[in-house]
Amino acid sequence: MRVAGIMSGTSLDGIDVAVVDVARGRIKPVAFSTSPYPKAVRQQILAVSNRTCHTSEISHLNFLLPKLYAAALKKLNVPDVELIGCHGQTIFHEGSGSTLQIGDGSVLAELTGIPVVSDFRPRDMAAGGQGAPLVSFFDYACFRHPKRTRVAVNIGGIANITVIKPGARLEEVIAFDTGPGNMVMDQLTGSMDRGGELGSKGSIDRKLLAGLLKDRFYRQAPPKSAGREQYGEEFVARFAGLPLADAVATAAAFTVATLVRGIELIADSPDDVIVGRGGARNPHLMALLAAQLPASRVATTNEFGIDSDAKEAIAFALLAHATWLRKPSNVPSATGARRPVILGKISY
Amino acid sequence: MRVAGIMSGTSLDGIDVAVVDVARGRIKPVAFSTSPYPKAVRQQILAVSNRTCHTSEISHLNFLLPKLYAAALKKLNVPDVELIGCHGQTIFHEGSGSTLQIGDGSVLAELTGIPVVSDFRPRDMAAGGQGAPLVSFFDYACFRHPKRTRVAVNIGGIANITVIKPGARLEEVIAFDTGPGNMVMDQLTGSMDRGGELGSKGSIDRKLLAGLLKDRFYRQAPPKSAGREQYGEEFVARFAGLPLADAVATAAAFTVATLVRGIELIADSPDDVIVGRGGARNPHLMALLAAQLPASRVATTNEFGIDSDAKEAIAFALLAHATWLRKPSNVPSATGARRPVILGKISY
Repeated sequence: MRVAGIMSGTSLDGIDVAVVDVARGRIKPVAFSTSPYPKAVRQQILAVSNRTCHTSEISHLNFLLPKLYAAALKKLNVPDVELIGCHGQTIFHEGSGSTLQIGDGSVLAELTGIPVVSDFRPRDMAAGGQGAPLVSFFDYACFRHPKRTRVAVNIGGIANITVIKPGARLEEVIAFDTGPGNMVMDQLTGSMDRGGELGSKGSIDRKLLAGLLKDRFYRQAPPKSAGREQYGEEFVARFAGLPLADAVATAAAFTVATLVRGIELIADSPDDVIVGRGGARNPHLMALLAAQLPASRVATTNEFGIDSDAKEAIAFALLAHATWLRKPSNVPSATGARRPVILGKISY
Repeated sequence: MRVAGIMSGTSLDGIDVAVVDVARGRIKPVAFSTSPYPKAVRQQILAVSNRTCHTSEISHLNFLLPKLYAAALKKLNVPDVELIGCHGQTIFHEGSGSTLQIGDGSVLAELTGIPVVSDFRPRDMAAGGQGAPLVSFFDYACFRHPKRTRVAVNIGGIANITVIKPGARLEEVIAFDTGPGNMVMDQLTGSMDRGGELGSKGSIDRKLLAGLLKDRFYRQAPPKSAGREQYGEEFVARFAGLPLADAVATAAAFTVATLVRGIELIADSPDDVIVGRGGARNPHLMALLAAQLPASRVATTNEFGIDSDAKEAIAFALLAHATWLRKPSNVPSATGARRPVILGKISY
């Protein structure tokens, strides 16, 4: 089955579209692209995200976003797509309360002529979960190994890991947020130090780093999740006074240190550490991680045939495919849900 | 198949739940009840309906309403329900733009353990329709006749009719809003003159009635739809100065006159006029309608085996059943859509 995954994250970078062929739970990537949001749309989304706005603004965007999603898919120009998994745009999320994604699945189905699975998170939350992380299902499907302990690392704004021990069953997978991914670095530079150039030139402020690591969150056993608000302005203010390169170097070291602490909570010296999403494109971050995990093979998802930037969109293609087959795809040990449930809603 | 329909309208009266058995497109009602909204919930819904609010309020209600829907269904205590059609609560609707219903279908599916079809209106609108009326599908399924012209009349806040000529195919059904239903009377009395007592005691102000009927909307050919805002405070102010009973009598006469004009646009002397929803419980309104349509049999849906109050909830059970079978259920000649489409989204 040929399935498209469409993802647009809260960083508002744009719309990721991946097309994959799925057969017997195995994924073969076909195409991927990212389309930036038009500036006006980004502003409109910000205006309704976790703030006061008019109901009509949300309703309009709920109908407008599918047009952009459909255009992004059309641009890829891949024939014979049979199903779309569309994450939508999160405008509110409170892990233990409620979540709200917009970008209506029925509108997208009508615009594309392709069935759509949308709204993946509410069902897991109704079953007592946090509605996240959902990418663990993909990590398990793609990276599990009969003899090797593998850790899939997702470095977006926030970083999370999926730990898969040799021969683990899906319900034995452990996944949780470890701390910040790129978002502290992004705020310090005002853009994205994605190549890691600044970070690699600066010196790490050891005292600040030790202070940041004192928070008990990093020692706490999972399940746990980190919110974007945890690493907002107040957190970034702790880097004030440092030269920019040193601040970025320290933030990078902090991301890596919290990742390593997270990994060590569950697995001593995993065989493979497989990094995906934005962080995989930061050689400085990758080098720091490799240095701190000398007994592990540290690689990007690209070495496993998965474009690291496409990973999240591909994950939603796979989640949609599971729903299409009426199979549960949340990982209760990752989200905290009481039971496995079939995620999302299908528009035919 | 045993299907529940759950409807909560913009009048915020409460939650209607109907359970029906469906076999080969035929409906057998099993149970029905109305549960009023708790006062605090009604206030919360009002606070997010077509006005400025915080995104979190919408997100919370989207998760809270399914709890009330599930409780209302449980209260009916009917075993073996296999599917739920849930309209949700409309908090924004602009016929040619977008529509937004809340009360998440996946949350309801998790709470009840029953698959749910929700969000019926967006697909029709994405196909160029107004997203309403959707009840025509039900009217056709229940009331079509090989030899008789039938008009199904729905008198809620707004009134609409579905005209079904003898042996008509679904795509030949015509449906549209005719004008106000109960909402002018309700505003005048400050509650509901549902028994029609006040109206039956008052005298009709012929001059005011003639003036109200001058609006070209009532002569305009369908498709057309009337908004609640059309009959709000400004409209009701035209009744100022009349004794209350006379005002209500005139408003009742206006509802009937606009219904009759609507019917006459499409069908001369239909054989049967079948009245459902709140208006069917107003004997004064029914008597006026019968008097103005002397060549027709004027009856309530009850005489056809359908509780007039349950009609809308039953309609959404039938719409859900169609979606479950992957059958289109909008009526393009009623909504203005370009084509028949499968309405709603399924949560398994």
